[in-house]
Amino acid sequence: MLLGKIVGTLVATRKEASLLGLKFLVVRCLTIDNEEDAGYVIAADAVGAGVGEVVLYATGSSARQTVRTDKRPCDAVIMAIVDTWEVDGLEKYRKN
Amino acid sequence: MLLGKIVGTLVATRKEASLLGLKFLVVRCLTIDNEEDAGYVIAADAVGAGVGEVVLYATGSSARQTVRTDKRPCDAVIMAIVDTWEVDGLEKYRKN
Amino acid sequence: MLLGKIVGTLVATRKEASLLGLKFLVVRCLTIDNEEDAGYVIAADAVGAGVGEVVLYATGSSARQTVRTDKRPCDAVIMAIVDTWEVDGLEKYRKN
Amino acid sequence: MLLGKIVGTLVATRKEASLLGLKFLVVRCLTIDNEEDAGYVIAADAVGAGVGEVVLYATGSSARQTVRTDKRPCDAVIMAIVDTWEVDGLEKYRKN
Amino acid sequence: MLLGKIVGTLVATRKEASLLGLKFLVVRCLTIDNEEDAGYVIAADAVGAGVGEVVLYATGSSARQTVRTDKRPCDAVIMAIVDTWEVDGLEKYRKN
Repeated sequence: MLLGKIVGTLVATRKEASLLGLKFLVVRCLTIDNEEDAGYVIAADAVGAGVGEVVLYATGSSARQTVRTDKRPCDAVIMAIVDTWEVDGLEKYRKN
Repeated sequence: MLLGKIVGTLVATRKEASLLGLKFLVVRCLTIDNEEDAGYVIAADAVGAGVGEVVLYATGSSARQTVRTDKRPCDAVIMAIVDTWEVDGLEKYRKN
Repeated sequence: MLLGKIVGTLVATRKEASLLGLKFLVVRCLTIDNEEDAGYVIAADAVGAGVGEVVLYATGSSARQTVRTDKRPCDAVIMAIVDTWEVDGLEKYRKN
Repeated sequence: MLLGKIVGTLVATRKEASLLGLKFLVVRCLTIDNEEDAGYVIAADAVGAGVGEVVLYATGSSARQTVRTDKRPCDAVIMAIVDTWEVDGLEKYRKN
Repeated sequence: MLLGKIVGTLVATRKEASLLGLKFLVVRCLTIDNEEDAGYVIAADAVGAGVGEVVLYATGSSARQTVRTDKRPCDAVIMAIVDTWEVDGLEKYRKN
């Protein structure tokens, strides 16, 4: 899994029928030190996450192992909202 | 999923039999800010997309989770046509 | 899927038994503008392609969705021979 | 599989239900010569690994092939703790 | 599949139980012209390969399609030992 920050939403009304009801979020990738980089992913939301939250996302077939994404053409899913992580004993992020 | 713009079509008459009827589109990758980059992918079309449209595409095994691509040797599929997305409160694209 | 040009062949007599009979081709990756880049992949041939041909290849689990590669330890397959593709209205390649 | 060093832990209380009980570790990627690079992954722990240990991790669907990660939306797992490896006859790491 | 050269071995005694008996090899990635690059992978051995040999390896779910790696948390496997390959009519490698 990788770390990301939700920076926006995406709307797509014309889509594969099985995607109806899925919420698409724009996720900017974060480094291990909680800095934004140029990477991004559009991920389905499986946990009720919102803009501004720091999350974990999974990609590939693992992105279909949630109740909301099962058997759908979805290759990235937000499966956890991060409370905190640390690196070498230093706290890099804490949800307030 | 990632963002892309359909910039062309591809024709291949000699192919694995299971691919008959699939439409192949040339997709240029877009950044989170709606700029074209050097990346591309040839994706199967699952939603009736056309040249010039901005789309979402999925890769890997997730690309086979549509009615049109099920059990086919296809690793990229266009599964949604994008209406709009925003980043940090700014609209980056809107379909006209 | 991505575009590639078959530039050679590979021989491997000692291999997993399930790979017997598969033909391995050396594929140089092509850009969207039909230029060769430094990337390559060794792909199994599912369509009777030969050296010099421009092809589409699929990777990952999708590479096993052909009659010849089903259930084999193969992560790249040539599943189509390209006739032509165009980008922004310009033809980038045509098979002669 | 790739080599990594566990440099920290991650806490996420709000997550997909199937992830309950999984321990998330922050893993910094290592080069073949045992140097840390900028890459990282957040991996589930399948072997009781701890901060400071050098490990092997697997990604993609293979990350779900452990007792602890089966059928969960997890795309990276620590499946072995490394004792030692060598390159060109030189020992690059030995667990003390 | 990609080309690699086996440059060493890796020992891990504490690991997911299903990995018992698998041999882990350190593989340095090769370019299409048989030059070593900075990339590497730790791969399971499915064909009795040894240090110094040039091999083909497969990654992702395809790495589990061998008798030795079936249903194991393994995302890279050596599934063939290379005899020779050529590019643009030039032999780039021949096993002696």
